[in-house]
Amino acid sequence: MSKRRRTEEDEEKLNSEETSNGLVQHQSSRIPLLPKELEPSIFGIQPNNDFVRVVSDFLYNHVRKGDVEIEAKLGVLLDKVNRERIKLPVFCETVINPHEDKWMIFESNMTLEQHKSFNELLNNRFIETKSPSHKGQPVEYKHTYEIDSFYDTKEGRIRVTRDRKTGEIVEGGIVQKIRVADLNIYSPNTKLDYRISVNREIPKKMPEGQHNFERNKDRLSYTHQIVKIDLTQVKVSGGGSQDLTHELEVEFINPRILLEEKLKIERNQENKYIEIVEHFLNNIRMLAKKVL
Amino acid sequence: MSKRRRTEEDEEKLNSEETSNGLVQHQSSRIPLLPKELEPSIFGIQPNNDFVRVVSDFLYNHVRKGDVEIEAKLGVLLDKVNRERIKLPVFCETVINPHEDKWMIFESNMTLEQHKSFNELLNNRFIETKSPSHKGQPVEYKHTYEIDSFYDTKEGRIRVTRDRKTGEIVEGGIVQKIRVADLNIYSPNTKLDYRISVNREIPKKMPEGQHNFERNKDRLSYTHQIVKIDLTQVKVSGGGSQDLTHELEVEFINPRILLEEKLKIERNQENKYIEIVEHFLNNIRMLAKKVL
Repeated sequence: MSKRRRTEEDEEKLNSEETSNGLVQHQSSRIPLLPKELEPSIFGIQPNNDFVRVVSDFLYNHVRKGDVEIEAKLGVLLDKVNRERIKLPVFCETVINPHEDKWMIFESNMTLEQHKSFNELLNNRFIETKSPSHKGQPVEYKHTYEIDSFYDTKEGRIRVTRDRKTGEIVEGGIVQKIRVADLNIYSPNTKLDYRISVNREIPKKMPEGQHNFERNKDRLSYTHQIVKIDLTQVKVSGGGSQDLTHELEVEFINPRILLEEKLKIERNQENKYIEIVEHFLNNIRMLAKKVL
Repeated sequence: MSKRRRTEEDEEKLNSEETSNGLVQHQSSRIPLLPKELEPSIFGIQPNNDFVRVVSDFLYNHVRKGDVEIEAKLGVLLDKVNRERIKLPVFCETVINPHEDKWMIFESNMTLEQHKSFNELLNNRFIETKSPSHKGQPVEYKHTYEIDSFYDTKEGRIRVTRDRKTGEIVEGGIVQKIRVADLNIYSPNTKLDYRISVNREIPKKMPEGQHNFERNKDRLSYTHQIVKIDLTQVKVSGGGSQDLTHELEVEFINPRILLEEKLKIERNQENKYIEIVEHFLNNIRMLAKKVL
């Protein structure tokens, strides 16, 4: 485990030290079984984590240009047949083989209650990081109300995003979103699974004609260092149906950050590629664990 | 990732630095996307690894006394029906749910070629750690030839272990081995899976009567810090059958080491429980990755 970083265990230790008693002294009089410095393994190194490596490779293969969006969404992996959460005979968080996920769908949704608790959790963290005693970088926070209108054109579906109050098209608000690849993660020890997606977002001109349907988005965006956490309430209208969903996604603020590190790998330069992927995963994992 | 520990990535970096060119300077003139110190997550901490947590909990629940044996064996998880390696739709190393593993068996075996390559690998590491320039702790090495004789008695099966050359019973050589629990790990990215087992080894008196069958063990034991890696060629004879298997297992030299840390957790004291479990896992994972 890392010395540099605080982990959940350290958090527990901080709590446990308050309640610890004199038994430490008693302990030290015994024969020491543990070497002073425990090496990572007989080979002196520790293996790359298989999970992180698989996610890293996935992103490495699919992030080719700066015009991509890299996001992780909380949700549930459902069996297409019975619409229930999938069941695999595994005991821990695991990456689904993308060549064998045709029998499942990912539903990016949660209950209003879960959504509310994330709102509280992230608001509290925002306040915490604004305290003068806080040593890390602060969390920033923005509330936006937007409307996405979808136009089905000859070149495909185009999304136009407007500010709900002013009616104006937001910056970079006309795009064609093209799915590049998805990686589903089954997480049997938490209430929700998650999906990592790479999409291309190609800027477009304003489409002609009428839009097909609309998505009303009430969004709280929390930004911290290189990621943005969006907590969104989405109301879809049009085509006769109306649906309210609650979404949480973690996204790179600037996906070029990963591309830059990838290029360093290609040039055999020192890089922080794996560290950045882990940072991204840590965020979505921490959130998955906090689901009510 | 840890700063303190060398990892596979660091190894790669060492290699890549030799071939790096002037592009680093070019790079630094761009707008910096990465903060100087990347925090583990928006919450300032990194989540416990789900895999390590599951293995830690498993050992925590089953290591109750010092008389246990904790070992990890390389092998293959086979489907009971077709005797082929199991297939799960997952993309990375994952722990099998022990309540749902009845349809599979674990076969602790490998090819002679794989066994030979482990022998070379570990011999080389032995030599490497004996070099005066080596900074870590040395690997020790022992070759033993033993015979296990199995006696089926009223109290159950008893194992008597003798030195093949002297014929004498080895220290602690008469035991009844009782299976406590197993945890199977499916590893689709390596040629072999592995199983973590907890067994009790209860010392017994010499049983009467005739033994049932024998296991001839030609074993190379490599010890390093708190673990022992046994590379064993086993010949089973008796009952008409004769079989030659090749096994590799990683074992705690003294399983009390884990028990001591568990007791510290129970007393709310600072402890190295997780670090020790990771050390154990690192060893078996490094070996799994090296399988030919």
